[in-house]
Amino acid sequence: MIISALLTSVGINTGLCVVFFACYSILRKQPSNYAVYIPRLLAEGTSKRIPRFNLERILPFSNWVARAWRLSEDELLSLSGLDAVVFMRMITFSLKIFTFAGIIGIFVLLPVNCWGNQLQDFDVVDFANNSLDVFTISNVNSGSNWLWVHFFAVYILTGFICLLLHHEYKYIALKRLSYFYSSDPRPHQFTILVRSIPSSSSYGISDSVESFFREFYPSTYVSHVVIRRTNKIRSLLIEAKNLYKKITQLRKHNRQKNKQGDYFRLFGQDDGLIDQYGKKLGEIEQNVRLHQSENSLATEEARAAFVFFKSRYAAATAFHMQQSVNPTQWIAEPAPEPRDVYWPFFSESFMRRWISKLVVLVATTLFTLLFLIPVVIVQGLTNLKQLEVLFPFLTSILTIKFVTQIITGYLPSLILQLSLKAVPPIMGFLTSMQGYISHSDIESSACNKVIWFTVWNVFLATVFSGSFLSLLSVILDPKHIPERLAVAVPAQASFFITYVVTSGWTSVTSELFRIIPLLGSLITRPFSSPDDEFEVPSLPFHRDVPRVLFFGLLGITYFFLAPLILPFLLAYLCLAYIIYRNQFINVYAPKYETGGKLWPTVHNTMIFSLILMHMIALGIFALKKLSPASSWMLPLPVLTLLFNEYCRKRFLPIFIAYSTESLIKKDREDQNDPRMAEFYKKLVIAYKDPALLPFQYTSNTDDLFDPLLS
Amino acid sequence: MIISALLTSVGINTGLCVVFFACYSILRKQPSNYAVYIPRLLAEGTSKRIPRFNLERILPFSNWVARAWRLSEDELLSLSGLDAVVFMRMITFSLKIFTFAGIIGIFVLLPVNCWGNQLQDFDVVDFANNSLDVFTISNVNSGSNWLWVHFFAVYILTGFICLLLHHEYKYIALKRLSYFYSSDPRPHQFTILVRSIPSSSSYGISDSVESFFREFYPSTYVSHVVIRRTNKIRSLLIEAKNLYKKITQLRKHNRQKNKQGDYFRLFGQDDGLIDQYGKKLGEIEQNVRLHQSENSLATEEARAAFVFFKSRYAAATAFHMQQSVNPTQWIAEPAPEPRDVYWPFFSESFMRRWISKLVVLVATTLFTLLFLIPVVIVQGLTNLKQLEVLFPFLTSILTIKFVTQIITGYLPSLILQLSLKAVPPIMGFLTSMQGYISHSDIESSACNKVIWFTVWNVFLATVFSGSFLSLLSVILDPKHIPERLAVAVPAQASFFITYVVTSGWTSVTSELFRIIPLLGSLITRPFSSPDDEFEVPSLPFHRDVPRVLFFGLLGITYFFLAPLILPFLLAYLCLAYIIYRNQFINVYAPKYETGGKLWPTVHNTMIFSLILMHMIALGIFALKKLSPASSWMLPLPVLTLLFNEYCRKRFLPIFIAYSTESLIKKDREDQNDPRMAEFYKKLVIAYKDPALLPFQYTSNTDDLFDPLLS
Repeated sequence: MIISALLTSVGINTGLCVVFFACYSILRKQPSNYAVYIPRLLAEGTSKRIPRFNLERILPFSNWVARAWRLSEDELLSLSGLDAVVFMRMITFSLKIFTFAGIIGIFVLLPVNCWGNQLQDFDVVDFANNSLDVFTISNVNSGSNWLWVHFFAVYILTGFICLLLHHEYKYIALKRLSYFYSSDPRPHQFTILVRSIPSSSSYGISDSVESFFREFYPSTYVSHVVIRRTNKIRSLLIEAKNLYKKITQLRKHNRQKNKQGDYFRLFGQDDGLIDQYGKKLGEIEQNVRLHQSENSLATEEARAAFVFFKSRYAAATAFHMQQSVNPTQWIAEPAPEPRDVYWPFFSESFMRRWISKLVVLVATTLFTLLFLIPVVIVQGLTNLKQLEVLFPFLTSILTIKFVTQIITGYLPSLILQLSLKAVPPIMGFLTSMQGYISHSDIESSACNKVIWFTVWNVFLATVFSGSFLSLLSVILDPKHIPERLAVAVPAQASFFITYVVTSGWTSVTSELFRIIPLLGSLITRPFSSPDDEFEVPSLPFHRDVPRVLFFGLLGITYFFLAPLILPFLLAYLCLAYIIYRNQFINVYAPKYETGGKLWPTVHNTMIFSLILMHMIALGIFALKKLSPASSWMLPLPVLTLLFNEYCRKRFLPIFIAYSTESLIKKDREDQNDPRMAEFYKKLVIAYKDPALLPFQYTSNTDDLFDPLLS
Repeated sequence: MIISALLTSVGINTGLCVVFFACYSILRKQPSNYAVYIPRLLAEGTSKRIPRFNLERILPFSNWVARAWRLSEDELLSLSGLDAVVFMRMITFSLKIFTFAGIIGIFVLLPVNCWGNQLQDFDVVDFANNSLDVFTISNVNSGSNWLWVHFFAVYILTGFICLLLHHEYKYIALKRLSYFYSSDPRPHQFTILVRSIPSSSSYGISDSVESFFREFYPSTYVSHVVIRRTNKIRSLLIEAKNLYKKITQLRKHNRQKNKQGDYFRLFGQDDGLIDQYGKKLGEIEQNVRLHQSENSLATEEARAAFVFFKSRYAAATAFHMQQSVNPTQWIAEPAPEPRDVYWPFFSESFMRRWISKLVVLVATTLFTLLFLIPVVIVQGLTNLKQLEVLFPFLTSILTIKFVTQIITGYLPSLILQLSLKAVPPIMGFLTSMQGYISHSDIESSACNKVIWFTVWNVFLATVFSGSFLSLLSVILDPKHIPERLAVAVPAQASFFITYVVTSGWTSVTSELFRIIPLLGSLITRPFSSPDDEFEVPSLPFHRDVPRVLFFGLLGITYFFLAPLILPFLLAYLCLAYIIYRNQFINVYAPKYETGGKLWPTVHNTMIFSLILMHMIALGIFALKKLSPASSWMLPLPVLTLLFNEYCRKRFLPIFIAYSTESLIKKDREDQNDPRMAEFYKKLVIAYKDPALLPFQYTSNTDDLFDPLLS
């Protein structure tokens, strides 16, 4: 790619960012947009929608940047919980790494790369077209001793990252523990979820749970709640909700009509419709009540139950031990927080869960593989000549320089990015069928899937330019992986620099601008009153974490190949730092709290990125005929993996379960607390399927209590 | 290989077997050999060494065969424990498989193979030299529909084996549970081993263990024993033992001299020597007593302790839970039986154990790889022409037909087998440095290592005829593994048939004959009195299990390639069946009891063998130009792996730890047992390092209590 194309792309995106920032600074002050830009403050009642006009409202002041900047970690912790803190630490961690890498890259590696004249020697003709390649390692002469600079840079960066990783893991583990120590008693700490309860014809599920835990945990067992299948009720409730929406819309319409007089008598059938819908709603209401009753067949008991214990330690021992002689029965696991439970899918039998897991894994793999087709098309777009062949009528337009630059520099990654937008929701949907019991588990599993999806479909597919078979042949020939990576990865440096600028900068500013919620709000505004209930969104970790991590992977792998990527990456991270902090203050409210369980994923992805960098380095040095450097690169991945193994042993257990020591200490604290009696009372009713909550509906009032939102 | 060479080999080995059987039947009745052939009965006092002569003693009656045959599983269980039962079930399991496979192989596949004329068409000249290949799949015509017979045979055998595997896993899991239920209270059920105890300058190790468990397990903690480093005492004791042996030998010598009169006054210095040794022994005795005292520096406390609990359930919860906030401290694991503890190596710190484990793994890998050199030499020996080139003086001998046949048919695998004899002890030694705390863990880990060693060094190295690099290139090119296996494996059919006959038959009859112990006894007999203490041996599982499993692997992989191997394998298994049962009755006493933990290893190896067979089948059908069969072979390994995954979930947990249900039931049974008070008293002193036991030595009596033997 030529420099001017990159500059065009950078120019467009910088412009877009500035426009987005300015628009955001104005739009967020308009009361009609409060639900889009500060839903959290609105829900908390901190801000009111007072339609008072003043000059400040139309000036693009950015005092929000200052507020986001000043937010301390403790404030963030109290605002959005430990998960948000860990998310922000992932960004600051990346900032630290790439500041260090950037200094080495720009002041040491870049001059060395420019100094070389490999490309001048060979590609005299193509020099103008490859001008960005002058800044990459491709320009260093083969066999040149200057390559040792790159060698040491790789060693130093790996060491630095490992040190930081260790420090972060330790810090977050300590945070997690102190968060646990400082927390009030929470229902999920005292609860386990038991599945695959063996059914017998003589006993009900509830009785067999009672007798099992009374027998084996006589001193610590408190009570239990059997889970019921509520899929039918849930679909009825959704139907009722839709009907209710229709009715309110019609009512509003009627009111407007009454104000405007009798101009539109044509719509007189509205009242009839309202009555009709009202009747239907009444029927559904009766139906729901019928199903909610204890003896209904539609809500028969599932073979799963929440079991409550007197102490955290008792609950922990219960899920650590295998309960029954048959390991596929009485499978216990820690219960999620009540608000975190994913009620719709309680496939309770061992075999069914196992099979659905397998099916989902196969589906995910197929999806990951088939997704390559649009990627290949996108790759085709970067090739102008191919475009001209496909669409001959475009030839005249493609000769205009500006159009050419947009197409080569901007369009490909924009299309790629748009199609990638669909991936996190699809992965989330697939994962939700895998039998997880909590939203947090689903998101964390989907997060991993999206990471691998991105590595495969964006990184590897771009690097090996596309076809599924060529990719597969690389994977199936492990001996030559470093070599082939070394040939292919540097060639795509300019593409990924553009990718950071377009996908990275745009995604993070559009995150600030919240384009889709804004559009949604603009469309629905005519039909909704300002007093309508609205949901405070939560940050979809499985969408944003993989994105940040993937930019980290690009930065690490291209650090010594094409250090020019680093300033753009740093700009992205700085934007992300300010914008996500702002969003945590104004927009997102936590939907659940895992206590920082996200970090191991971050750690593993970083280790993977390092190993990938080592592989490429191995291949590059062999290709550049500096074989001692190639051989001396071998210990580095081994050492990195050993370091990872050490961290897995030292820190990972803390993120999986709490230790006897912590649990018992925390239990002792509570022992003398007079509020515990109250807590136990609440504990027993904490886990209640929202579909089974009383369904308050009176067709005469506008007020409909919506259990699905709670 | 030509048929006559195989027949020679079979003839020699059958002869050897008959001779061994006859010799054994006579020799075992000689009282002087009782210590070799019936040490177990001798130690139990069932048989006495009465040197009474009768005719029966020199007639080769084989009534021992009948006794071994009649032994029921329950008798075996009470004699040698569950581990012996599982070992025997491994053999009967293989017998069942290969009877089924043999029927299909001999009556269906063999005729199909002979029917073909692929080899006749191409190798007219070499036909005589390849006559064994007529019975293999190589003889079936390419693209012939008869290959579908092989295809279905593979499917049927896989199904049969999976069914049997499921049945056996279930059976043994139930056996394990019923064994647990029927067992008396055992110390190791109430005990955990804690390592990496954090040391502090103010507290001793013992105090910190006491305070930790008093704090977190106040109601169930009983007591603890801190482990002390006794390497020095151990070496002193060995020295003392050797000195004592020398003294007794000298004394015996003196006594004989006194009887014979003064012929050999030359040996008068014996008395002086005895005094000298006696003095040394006295010094050592003092030294040992000094070290054994509580405050000795030589036996400082290690950062590890056995901790005793009131109930099995309490002990189990303690090792299931992570104890401390720092996962690398207070690491708990189930304690082994007191007799099973491997005292010499208590590397107690987390890092040291981890590093020693890594070092041992690297050493094992290197050993496995370097071992190929003798294998290559052995492979060279099968090639007569190479021999003639290397040793020209042999040319005249090599022209004799009988010698040729011995060399090609017998010698190669004999040499291979002899060098393989050294592997299990070496693996056992290496594994013992890995930080395991019990003999059973060491043997089971060594067992796995020996299995992989055998698969790599005997199977793969033979198949790909030898060189390390060619092997590595196969592994690093996974796409072509089935193809290369399909070319190489059938070519070695005759070698492995001979291998079964020589290595298999010989090893199992020499197991009966106990050549090495017999030779040892013959050599040391002049120096030992019949009243000497002798050790009852235990079956070294890591030597015998891999051998049986490897023959299973050969049988499964060659089943459809060269069914001729099956009758020889069946003969081997029948021999093994009778002989090992006899050895369990007469020779081996169990050194420890793991409750059948061996079975998962057997199961995994069988699954591996199946997958290997599928790989080869995949390649063969592709090679034979029957591609639909090759594609339809693909689901089979996937299904097999799914079956394995199911078994892992359904049965494996039972072999790892007991469930709450079993533990609490068992604990309840004991609650009302009046003998429990007595048991708790014994429990506290059950774990005692033999090196710290009182060292009774008086230089005036001949009696030396030897703590190393207990």
